This record gives sequence, C-alpha cells and structure tokens, in this order.
Amino acid sequence: MVKIGILGLGTVGTGTVQILRDPVGRHHLLQSIEIQRVGVKSIDKPRAVDLPSELVTTDLDSIVSDPDIDIIVELMGGIEPARSLMLKAIAHGKHIVTANKAVIAKFGDEIFTAANQAGVYVMLEAAVGGGIPVIQPLKQSLGVNRIQRITGIINGTTNYILTRMTVEGGEFADILADAQKLGYAEADPTADVDGLDAGDKIAILASLAFGGRIKRDDVYCEGIRKISATDIAYADKLNFVIKLLAIAERVESGGVSVRVHPTFVPKDRPLATVNGVYNAILVEGEPLGQVMLFGPGAGAGATASAVVSDILAIVGVMQTNSSHEDAVNSPNTSLHPLLSCSHSHYSEMAPLSSLRSSFYVRFLCIDVPGVIGKLGTCFGEHHVSIESIVQTGFQGDRAEIVVVTHEVSEGDFESALAEIRGLDSIASIPSIVRVL
Amino acid sequence: MVKIGILGLGTVGTGTVQILRDPVGRHHLLQSIEIQRVGVKSIDKPRAVDLPSELVTTDLDSIVSDPDIDIIVELMGGIEPARSLMLKAIAHGKHIVTANKAVIAKFGDEIFTAANQAGVYVMLEAAVGGGIPVIQPLKQSLGVNRIQRITGIINGTTNYILTRMTVEGGEFADILADAQKLGYAEADPTADVDGLDAGDKIAILASLAFGGRIKRDDVYCEGIRKISATDIAYADKLNFVIKLLAIAERVESGGVSVRVHPTFVPKDRPLATVNGVYNAILVEGEPLGQVMLFGPGAGAGATASAVVSDILAIVGVMQTNSSHEDAVNSPNTSLHPLLSCSHSHYSEMAPLSSLRSSFYVRFLCIDVPGVIGKLGTCFGEHHVSIESIVQTGFQGDRAEIVVVTHEVSEGDFESALAEIRGLDSIASIPSIVRVL
Ligand SMILES: NC(=O)c1ccc[n+]([C@@H]2O[C@H](COP(=O)([O-])OP(=O)(O)OC[C@H]3O[C@@H](n4cnc5c(N)ncnc54)[C@H](OP(=O)(O)O)[C@@H]3O)[C@@H](O)[C@H]2O)c1
Ligand SMILES: NC(=O)c1ccc[n+]([C@@H]2O[C@H](COP(=O)([O-])OP(=O)(O)OC[C@H]3O[C@@H](n4cnc5c(N)ncnc54)[C@H](OP(=O)(O)O)[C@@H]3O)[C@@H](O)[C@H]2O)c1
Repeated sequence: MVKIGILGLGTVGTGTVQILRDPVGRHHLLQSIEIQRVGVKSIDKPRAVDLPSELVTTDLDSIVSDPDIDIIVELMGGIEPARSLMLKAIAHGKHIVTANKAVIAKFGDEIFTAANQAGVYVMLEAAVGGGIPVIQPLKQSLGVNRIQRITGIINGTTNYILTRMTVEGGEFADILADAQKLGYAEADPTADVDGLDAGDKIAILASLAFGGRIKRDDVYCEGIRKISATDIAYADKLNFVIKLLAIAERVESGGVSVRVHPTFVPKDRPLATVNGVYNAILVEGEPLGQVMLFGPGAGAGATASAVVSDILAIVGVMQTNSSHEDAVNSPNTSLHPLLSCSHSHYSEMAPLSSLRSSFYVRFLCIDVPGVIGKLGTCFGEHHVSIESIVQTGFQGDRAEIVVVTHEVSEGDFESALAEIRGLDSIASIPSIVRVL
Repeated sequence: MVKIGILGLGTVGTGTVQILRDPVGRHHLLQSIEIQRVGVKSIDKPRAVDLPSELVTTDLDSIVSDPDIDIIVELMGGIEPARSLMLKAIAHGKHIVTANKAVIAKFGDEIFTAANQAGVYVMLEAAVGGGIPVIQPLKQSLGVNRIQRITGIINGTTNYILTRMTVEGGEFADILADAQKLGYAEADPTADVDGLDAGDKIAILASLAFGGRIKRDDVYCEGIRKISATDIAYADKLNFVIKLLAIAERVESGGVSVRVHPTFVPKDRPLATVNGVYNAILVEGEPLGQVMLFGPGAGAGATASAVVSDILAIVGVMQTNSSHEDAVNSPNTSLHPLLSCSHSHYSEMAPLSSLRSSFYVRFLCIDVPGVIGKLGTCFGEHHVSIESIVQTGFQGDRAEIVVVTHEVSEGDFESALAEIRGLDSIASIPSIVRVL
C-alpha cells in the first residue's frame, strides 16, 4: 500500500477523501492507496466524510514527518503554513500533490529546487483548470510540440460574472454582489476579479510550456472591474464577447509574454463559447495546430478528480520496475522525466511594450466637432493605425467615442494615450480593452 | 539512446520523422531518440524527408527483429502485414507505437495479450482524435472517475461533409464528390461515411473507459449516406445540427453500449460547435462532470505529434529507475500500470434494443388526411410517445410528415416502425435520425 497524508479537509479535501474511499469502478490502482493521516485546523468541525477520529489531527507537522507516509496531499490553500509544510515534507523525502496555485506561482522555484534535490515529485494538476487535464498533457503529449501560445479562460468567478453581464446586460458591481450571495465569488473577490488568480495559473502553465521558470511579478495582471455594461454591449454589436484571458506566448522579437487581461474575443472562436464557471485552455503548437481542453474549472468533485489523478501518477511510477534503464544512457536520471519539472533557469520575459495588440478604447469627450480629428492626429503621430472611430452617442452631456485600432505596438499605443489624456476635449477614458 | 524502427513513411511517418529530426525547442527527451531503420513499400519513391539511404529498407521483417531496436512505430495502416509485423516485434521484446485504429479495434485482443505476456507497451494515442490527447488522459487523469459516457466527433471526413451540407445546404453525394476532389475524402469513402472508422475508434475508447475489451462486431455503425439536405434544414429549424456521433456509455439496465450514428445535436451543446475536420471528445464521469477535448483529428503534423508523444512516454519510463518498488506491495508489476492495458475480459454489451432514445423520422405519404391518425395510433400501441407530428409540405405528390418522439425504448420504436412500414399510406421513410 501507498500511504498518504492529507493537509486540509475542506471542499477539495473532502472530495478527495470521497474518491479514495469509494474506489470501485475507478482505476484499480486506487485500491493500493491508504489514507494515513488527515490534518485540519478545527478538530471539532462537523465533516461531510466520516473518518476514524484517530486519523484526524491538528498537528500537521507530525503528518509531514511521519515515516510511514509516502505522499503529502496539500489542500489547505494560502501561502503559510502550506509552503513550510511542503518544504518540510520534501525534506522528509515525501512526494507532494497540491492544488495550491498561489504557493506554486510564488514559491515554485524554492519548492521545485528542494524537490529535485530530494528526488521527489511535486504534482499540481488541480492547481489549474480544476478537473481539466492540462498540466499532465503539457508535460507529456503536448510537450513534443514547440508551444507557441497558451490562451486560457482559467478563472471561473470572472467568467461567471462576464457571462452574466453578457446575458443579462447588468453592471459589474451588481452581478459581483449577487455572485457573492450565490457562492460564486468570495467575500474578498480581489484575487479573482483583479486577475491575480488567473495570473498565478498562467505563470504555472507558461513555465511548463516554455521550459523555464517565470517570476510571478513579471506577469501583467489586469482584472475586470472596469468592464461596464456599455462595453459588453459594444462588443456584442461588433460581434465580440469580452473574456478575461490569460495568455502565455513566445514573442517574435524574443522572450515570452505572460499576461492576464480582459479581451474582445470574436464570437466564432472556440473560446468565445466557454461560459459560466467553465474553464478552457487553448494550446497552440508546432506541428500540432490548436487543441482546446474544456471543462469544470472548480468544484469539489472536479478538483478532487485532478488531485487523485496526481496521486495515481506517483503510485504508477512507484509500481513500475523499469527493466530497461541499461538501454538508456542516463545513469543520473531516477525521477520520471515526464512527471518531474527539471528546469531551473528563468524564461526571458518580453516587456508588454514590445507586444503588438489591437485595442478598443472608449472616450467621453467635451468638444465633439474637433475631437475626432484630434484623436486621429494623436494616434497617427504615434504610429497607431486606426480601424474605426465612431461617435456612438451621449452619456449625459459627454459625447461617447469608440476607437478600434489595428494591431499596433503596445508602446506606441501607450504614448499616444498619454498625450490624449492631456487633451482638454477628453473628459475621461472609461475603458481600454485589448482585441484578440 | 533509445533506438526506434519506423514502418511506413507516408503522411504520418514523414511527419514523425520531421519532429524527431528537429528536436530543438521540444521536450528534451526527444534528443535521446534515434531512428535506426525505416521500412517502406517502394524504395525509389521520392520522399519529403531526406534520410540516409542505408536507413530505408523494404525488408520490414528485418526491422521488427533488429536486436538494436527498442520501439517499433507502425505507420503503414491496413490490417496485414501491420498485424503480423507488430506481433513479431512484440515477440522480439519491442514496444509498439501505432496510429492504426483498424488493426487495434479488430485485433487488439491478440496484440495486447501478446504484449502483456512479453512485458512491452502498445501505445495508440494517434489512433483516435489525431493530435488531441485523449488516450493518455483516459488511462491516467480521467481514469480516477467512474466514466459514464464518451461522446465523440471522431471522424474528420464525415464532420467536414456534414458541416458543408449545413453551411451550403448541398446534398451528400455532391459534397462527397467535391471532398474527394479536395483530398478531404478518400477514393473509397466507405470506412468514413459508413461510420466504420468512427466505430473502430469508439471501440478503442470504450475499452479504455470501461476497462473491458470490446468486440468490434458488437459496435453498431450507421453512417451518413442517408442524410439529405432536407433533414439538415429541418434540424436547423428545430435548433439542432446533425453530427455523426460515436457514443460509448454505461447503460442503466446493465452493460455498455457502443455505437456510431448520425444524431440531432442541440445547437447550444459544445459538440454542436465542432465543425469541419476538427474532432472533439466529450467525457462524462463521476465526480468530474463533463470535460471536452477538441482539436485537429488528422493531418501529418497533428497525428505525428501524438505518435511522438507515445514514443516519449515509453522513453520516459525507460529512463526512470523507480527506487520505491519496495514500498509497494505488488512484486509482479513491472510495466507502468498507467501506460499498459492490463484488462483481458470483455465488457458486457447492452443490445441496442435495450437503450432509450428520441427519434426524428421523416415519412413520405400517400393518404394525407388519414395518415397522421394512423401514425399516432401505431406509435401509441407500441408505447412510443410522440413529441410532435407535423405535415411539413410536399415532395412531388407525396406529403412529407416529420415525427419527433420523446425518449422511448429502441425496441418499441423498431416494432412500431416495422408495423408502419406495412401501411399502404406510407410511401417511404427517407430518414430516421436519433436525437441527443
Ligand atoms: N474549491 C475549489 O473549487 C478549488 C479549485 C481548484 C483549486 N483549489 C485549491 O485547493 C486548495 C483548497 O481549497 P478548498 O476550497 O478545499 O479550501 P477550504 O474549503 O477552505 O479548506 C481548507 C482546509 O484546510 C484546513 N486548513 C487551512 N488552514 C489550516 C491550518 N493553518 N492548519 C490546519 N488546517 C488548515 C481547513 O481546516 P478546517 O476545516 O479545520 O477549517 C480546511 O479543512 C486551495 O489551494 C485552493 O486554491 C480549490
Ligand atoms: N493521415 C492521417 O491524417 C492519419 C490520422 C490518424 C491516423 N492515421 C493512421 O496512420 C497510419 C498511416 O497513415 P498514413 O496516412 O500515413 O498512410 P500513407 O500515407 O498511405 O502511408 C503508408 C506508408 O506505409 C508504407 N506501406 C504500406 N504498406 C506497406 C507494406 N506492405 N510494406 C512496406 N511498406 C508499406 C507505405 O510505403 P510507400 O511510401 O513506399 O508506399 C507508406 O510509406 C494509418 O493506420 C492511418 O489510419 C492517419
């Protein structure tokens, strides 16, 4: 039997225990896994699963150092004590399975370095895309491709809010409040609506896709707070939907770009049809072309499915006696090279200003007759080529003007905008959204 | 180095060689793979890849028995000599990677039995869904779920034809002819348009999902030859699109059902948006929910990506020295349990008549006034409950009547239809299509 210790018995922990204690009809290997200890904060909390009381403890340190335990499954969330417990478990030679994107995005460096030294695996399928198999395919099947770009809808809360804004025509704040009431958004929604959670996840995907670590601070994160019902309506008229996209791509001028921002997505793209709490990850590679992986991005069952699949992957390797090592000329390899993350250098990052994007910008203006000319001149002087510029109506006594640019340099666009902000006739710029 | 022998240097073989000979920027393990021999039929055919002439041979027997070769990559297609060569390679202790769904669907039994005895892997990611990772996720990540149903659009040719019929309103025969001219359909289109290729593939998926072998003859296959522009137009009016679906599911009354047939798919389902030569596989499981995998179902690059990922998976295991075997109580296991297919029993099959489905049926009738009543009576007597029955117009002097049923027993429906066929007022039944 393989013995596991679970840290955390909340939403995902409970789902994980439920799968493991009900193995019939699932992969037969599950029957060789035994839950040795489960760590929680409040021992007296009522639990949805009925575990023998001697299994449950608040002494998490004793779990990560228990000599009988082979695998530690970290499902507590948060940075500390999750990070320290994982490092301690690794020091005790235990493999790690985690759903904690925050700690991996921020301390992956430290954790993977320690794991590689100790010769243990750190598995994180559940950290991105809930039940969607994406980490494992990126490490294995898709890894034979040169990955050019990953584009993900990987935050369920924001996709739920944007979907409802699109369907109902409501405003962000109202729908967020309702989503909080319904349990689709947290009391503190910052990590979700400001794109930070998606930023954690795309940093993880980028490091797998491009084979170099990513500094979390280098990931540009822009959330959806500024998206208004007006923008959603314009997008619709122009045949787009607005999605919070997380993008990791190789940039032609060198380096990789990793970023999160709301985006106009043409309605006929597969990603445009991903609605509600569903997630999707589009992987583009050579020679593969485009593959999209779609499914539930969160929830007890889906996330637990990913957690248990990681446990299974480790158990699978533990049960394999490779009789072929001698055929392979790599005496030092002992971890399975498709499960471990062996890279230790950092990917070179391309600054945002080196990218090319199309933009949708909405202006509120004072002096209508002159302003279209001034906008045109300003953009032109900064080499920002415009696809359309339309006065779309009035908001009170302000004229509303919507500009859509061709693909232009982000740097040029920024400098044009800096100048435009100084124009007397521009009252405000309520929204700037990139266009896919 | 791991040495491979490739049988076949056509579309997929060429794509495979191209990836292997250009490893930079791909998974680093590719650099430990060496092409030892390549077998072809005509040695003098010009090739898109420039291989040293001493590598290429028409003596395929010498490849599968070459003691230096670790992995045989079968990319010839067809049943023989592919089957015999694979068996011979297995007998020589070589692992197999194949894209050949036909031989696996029909002789998988023999091939896997031989492989398990010899302690070698038979990998077949490329056999289903081209470049979409589906076989490996089913064996690994998704395998912790109880799989309830797999629904696939897994034949590119028929999806291309149906998509064009939907977009252009054309007839099957014309679009097939054009597809043949454009290279999207073969000169002999039988395997594709009669659903046999999809049948091979769903048999393979079903055996992985339900952990029991599937007799290819037990897979019900109905193709798209009878689908007319009229049916496509009715489907559209009713808010459906017609897709050739391959379905494998556990049936409540016991056993599994594996089948291929054209199906009315509601336009708001993810599968309805899968168009052209793209493939998609929807996996439903407990507790996961629904996951959909989408991508190019064929083509040199995509299929070769899957072939090379299988080679990589084997090389990965060959390079792993598991130091944990002793922790695991299974002394006999030596193949990696997530790569091998160890089941040897057959799944119990549920007969078609035990299923429940909704149907769309189009009748051409002689005696209009009386016929609607007669149809209603006949269906009613056989417990076939009707959702709608509409006289939709005339085809020449025949009145056209379209019936949509509720979910009914396939057996009841068949017996109702047998009686209806005998009615004098029914001239013909041009189409019967299941509704999802
Ligand atoms: N929920 C999802 O759908 C989802 C999806 C993908 C990934 N994830 C990730 O999965 C992880 C767990 O999420 P969750 O939703 O299951 O969280 P949760 O419901 O809040 O559960 C957290 C569990 O950890 C325990 N815990 C927290 N801090 C602890 C401490 N200092 N000492 C001991 N025990 C402690 C809690 O104990 P008590 O029960 O005693 O309070 C609780 O059982 C997070 O990293 C999250 O990002 C979640
Ligand atoms: N094409 C796709 O997009 C695709 C997608 C998924 C799966 N597949 C599967 O991949 C396999 C290969 O397909 P393909 O399209 O690459 O086929 P292909 O282009 O027809 O190539 C077949 C190759 O096998 C060789 N060959 C055939 N019979 C042989 C024999 N008796 N002895 C020696 N060599 C023989 C041929 O040699 P010569 O070149 O000398 O004639 C040719 O190089 C098939 O199983 C197919 O179902 C194909």
